[in-house]
Amino acid sequence: VNPPRVAVIGLGLIGGSIAVCLRQAGIHVAGLDHREEVAEVARELGLIDEIHGDVASLMQEREAVVLAVPVSGVFDLLPMVDRYAERHTLVLDTGSVKRPVIEVIRALPGASRCVGGHPIAGSEKSGPAHARPDLFRDRTFVLTPTSDTANDALQQARTLVERLGALPVIMDAAEHDRMLARSSHLPQILSTSLALSVHRIAPELAGPGLQSMTRLAASDPAMWRDVLTENCDEVLSALDDYVAGLDRMRDALQRRDGEELAALIAAGAQARYGLFGVAA
Amino acid sequence: VNPPRVAVIGLGLIGGSIAVCLRQAGIHVAGLDHREEVAEVARELGLIDEIHGDVASLMQEREAVVLAVPVSGVFDLLPMVDRYAERHTLVLDTGSVKRPVIEVIRALPGASRCVGGHPIAGSEKSGPAHARPDLFRDRTFVLTPTSDTANDALQQARTLVERLGALPVIMDAAEHDRMLARSSHLPQILSTSLALSVHRIAPELAGPGLQSMTRLAASDPAMWRDVLTENCDEVLSALDDYVAGLDRMRDALQRRDGEELAALIAAGAQARYGLFGVAA
Repeated sequence: VNPPRVAVIGLGLIGGSIAVCLRQAGIHVAGLDHREEVAEVARELGLIDEIHGDVASLMQEREAVVLAVPVSGVFDLLPMVDRYAERHTLVLDTGSVKRPVIEVIRALPGASRCVGGHPIAGSEKSGPAHARPDLFRDRTFVLTPTSDTANDALQQARTLVERLGALPVIMDAAEHDRMLARSSHLPQILSTSLALSVHRIAPELAGPGLQSMTRLAASDPAMWRDVLTENCDEVLSALDDYVAGLDRMRDALQRRDGEELAALIAAGAQARYGLFGVAA
Repeated sequence: VNPPRVAVIGLGLIGGSIAVCLRQAGIHVAGLDHREEVAEVARELGLIDEIHGDVASLMQEREAVVLAVPVSGVFDLLPMVDRYAERHTLVLDTGSVKRPVIEVIRALPGASRCVGGHPIAGSEKSGPAHARPDLFRDRTFVLTPTSDTANDALQQARTLVERLGALPVIMDAAEHDRMLARSSHLPQILSTSLALSVHRIAPELAGPGLQSMTRLAASDPAMWRDVLTENCDEVLSALDDYVAGLDRMRDALQRRDGEELAALIAAGAQARYGLFGVAA
């Protein structure tokens, strides 16, 4: 029996981490990245077994192909991958926005074997040099099947996600985009805006609080450009909710209302505990 | 020769960490905390040599007394500590706002030996259980002497800061408050506001980005109430600058202007690299 064979397109942090995790589980992993030097680094680091230069050859005899490129790249790749995929090849993407991806999938001849996916994991560091096999361990990996999705394909996707050590969570794509606008896309905007506003701070006055609050600001601009433009309505709505909360803080500040400020900070702490626990 | 003797008032994260670091350097450390159970925990953990119940007995034969309580507590304690301090006892506070503290110090009979201080270190975790001797290692410790400050007192403060492994940085109190409003107090407000706005997110969708962006939200409400009310003008000004940047992001989102979004994210990344380096 031959080992399972998987293809990964896009060998940055996410694709590289998926590749190396599967490879360590004995799966044969072929990789493709349109940036030749990225593919070379991925091979040198042992993240993949072999490099392919074109989708047609990459897709031969693969149980699954994983797309780990910015969302605009997913749009371009899906029709091409669909064209070369065999009948039972799972096509799984990993983009942070799901509704526009689902819309592209619905129009494909092979829509039944394409599943939208999104691992709730990552780092501000990009590129194959930061890939690690445990990036997804105990993390949620959202899957957004539609009424077109074949049961077999969804089961294949679940199995792949579990091989990464992640926890598959089935969600509606629109609900995913609404929630992630709040839990992920909004924080990215806040971090970038903060980084833009503190450029005159002396590094010796930059403490651990500022460090964690600007960590996301170091993320990949191309990836986030796609996420924010593709989910802009939900992100704008999340931003409005956020600014309403910020205005409550501002009002309390303007009144020098210590009691109200303490109450808001305590309520924020409770919300944080609810998400991450006291010791997180 | 007797070992140096230092008193610490307030045995939470900051006071406890100062105490244990000095104690490990062979200094005799007496502690006081108006919360009896906090003082007991600090002694049980070996952060201090002995507990005192009142300022008068605590201050006897001390080279220095460190105030590590919320800023409103510093206002209350300074006159009392000044009354019992011996002629050459250094009085050093550690509050995150310095101008109001300096104003109180100026009015004291012993103003010449009182120095405003602020370690650029800390954690969202409070209390003596989280104290650690290396909390200040290689961190900036701002000192804000005035024209009233005796050279001896400033030198004592420098020596104490260096004993903590920290780097003393002399600053004007008003400049400190202006900069820290941007580098520390503003991030606290943003983190709290974000935590308040994400209370309906399912924990399984809360990823590492949201985790770092809400870490500060878990901080002590009483401490931050004092910081924000005492520095509210500077914090409001920092908030205005921040919202201007946020509005640029919002405008680009509303236009779905991917090029502008990518440029803003890239500029934010550069600002972040400037503060913390690429690998931070």
